[in-house]
Amino acid sequence: MEINIPEVVAEVTAAFNRYEAALNSNDVAVLDELFWKSPHTLRYGVGEQLYGHDQIAAFRSGRNPQFVPNRDLLKLWIVTYGRDFGTANCEFQRHGAAKPGRQSHTWMRTPEGWRIVAAHVSLLGEATPMKS
Amino acid sequence: MEINIPEVVAEVTAAFNRYEAALNSNDVAVLDELFWKSPHTLRYGVGEQLYGHDQIAAFRSGRNPQFVPNRDLLKLWIVTYGRDFGTANCEFQRHGAAKPGRQSHTWMRTPEGWRIVAAHVSLLGEATPMKS
Repeated sequence: MEINIPEVVAEVTAAFNRYEAALNSNDVAVLDELFWKSPHTLRYGVGEQLYGHDQIAAFRSGRNPQFVPNRDLLKLWIVTYGRDFGTANCEFQRHGAAKPGRQSHTWMRTPEGWRIVAAHVSLLGEATPMKS
Repeated sequence: MEINIPEVVAEVTAAFNRYEAALNSNDVAVLDELFWKSPHTLRYGVGEQLYGHDQIAAFRSGRNPQFVPNRDLLKLWIVTYGRDFGTANCEFQRHGAAKPGRQSHTWMRTPEGWRIVAAHVSLLGEATPMKS
């Protein structure tokens, strides 16, 4: 399994950037497009757990477009595995938020293009001595 | 890309269960073994962001083994893509914790066995009208 083939990294980075731009402009059509259209797709958001593309799309379309503050990327970490899989992780700062956040995507190449098959977004919490 | 080939799902499930047992018994050797031994490996924990296997292993070995409360799985969601990749996501409840948590793993088949290449753990936060 070849890691970080340059042209594959470039493809996943372009897909990530397209998602990030859609997030900052609340372009729901592109956000829905970039999540794999499957009942197996999963998205853990800061305050919700969504199973399947239908639940994810319903969440997106139910959001108030007034509340779409921008965010800045603090760190981006993309790794690809062979030609068909990648992970894109980032730390971000929402404008006006007290804590930084983290976003994890697993990307897969599909006949339609690169798609997010699983995602997890959270805000940095308190370090605890408990395991996780 | 064939989704959820039964024997591949069984392999990833077995690897996930081995990790979960190691977490509940604070078996640091097994936890370290199951994370891909690479500088590209990433783990976002509840209160930390770790880049590369060395940082992850240092975090594990630095934990106080007194603080290892058990947790119960509330929901497990494993999906495999072809023969070499899988995602394992779960919701869990730490004993004594106020909020449930979520754990996301991306697994890859390596010559040494299935390994976690990226992980993200968080506690459920407040739903916000902000995008994520």
